[in-house]
Amino acid sequence: MDDRVKAILAGLDLWAEWPAATPRAIVGAALESFAERGFHGTSLKHIAQGSGLSTAALYVHFASKEEVLFALSRRGHALALALVREAAAESLDVLVRAFTIWHAEHRTIARVVQYEQGALTPEHRAEVGALRRETERVVRDLVERGVAAGALTVPDVRGAAAAVLSLGIDVARWYTPGGRWTPEALADLYADLAARMLGAAPGR
Amino acid sequence: MDDRVKAILAGLDLWAEWPAATPRAIVGAALESFAERGFHGTSLKHIAQGSGLSTAALYVHFASKEEVLFALSRRGHALALALVREAAAESLDVLVRAFTIWHAEHRTIARVVQYEQGALTPEHRAEVGALRRETERVVRDLVERGVAAGALTVPDVRGAAAAVLSLGIDVARWYTPGGRWTPEALADLYADLAARMLGAAPGR
Repeated sequence: MDDRVKAILAGLDLWAEWPAATPRAIVGAALESFAERGFHGTSLKHIAQGSGLSTAALYVHFASKEEVLFALSRRGHALALALVREAAAESLDVLVRAFTIWHAEHRTIARVVQYEQGALTPEHRAEVGALRRETERVVRDLVERGVAAGALTVPDVRGAAAAVLSLGIDVARWYTPGGRWTPEALADLYADLAARMLGAAPGR
Repeated sequence: MDDRVKAILAGLDLWAEWPAATPRAIVGAALESFAERGFHGTSLKHIAQGSGLSTAALYVHFASKEEVLFALSRRGHALALALVREAAAESLDVLVRAFTIWHAEHRTIARVVQYEQGALTPEHRAEVGALRRETERVVRDLVERGVAAGALTVPDVRGAAAAVLSLGIDVARWYTPGGRWTPEALADLYADLAARMLGAAPGR
């Protein structure tokens, strides 16, 4: 793996948001249950059982099931934003590779965050939406700089930048470890395809 | 909209699979509830209420909630396969446009089918997986023919064909009507991006 990609990914620890053992166990159990049964199919009892706590003890840390989903959603989106910000300081190639590998490796949280978005309160959805739009803006700005420098040729910067992100996000839906692709091989493929979409010189 | 795209889409009626009113009402109510609450969050009571039937009456038509999900999943995948087969007889451009518009317009069933796949029985998942692999094969063959004819330049045919489909499928996740894109404008963008990914002459 490219050393810069490796460094960026190594700096993103999903669980660092919950340093104490109890909140971490709650969020971990919730993530597992949301992934298995969906948000609406998950009860507080599932989360309590998975984390080895009583449902009363859950309330000390989270006011509701939705608050746990929101914590996961905000964390997932904040990491994606941190990733593209750091990678954008390197190059589009680094960005696509890191984004692809992250979604292959963190497909469980990525799926929950994407598929259960409708279960967030309007306020929480707006907060997550702001992180999402900021991520898109970082990628759009990078593409715009490439176009201004003559390195890229893109008829629709916003559309192409959104498509590059969409390809990466959808990796979380279909990726299965042990299949045809390692995350690194997929990063090679997607870096090449993104360069083509954005009108950079074809090939790597 | 391109007339060939329009003709292909007009020939794909999701609901034609259920010509009788009662099964159609059941499948429609299930789709709505799966989309709103997820498969595991949906009870037979939700489906009964949504379709105006008793839960006992549901069993006359479907043996279980999973059977309704399977019917929807098989139908969604069979339509996607029919779409790519018909479109592949035209061109890659027609295929990408029709696939993109279909996923924007049928995002509800596409989401349910994609996100709830894990809830299918292994046998049903295998049956749907066969349709999915056949869809990928049709697109791969089309790309291979383009490469053989010198119209496309693709280092990894299988990977590029999968990426073209992935972009289209992910439309169902993020597309919102009344936003920046009409389905037709998105089809224009994606046809251009797919042509670039596949090394066809850039631009339209």
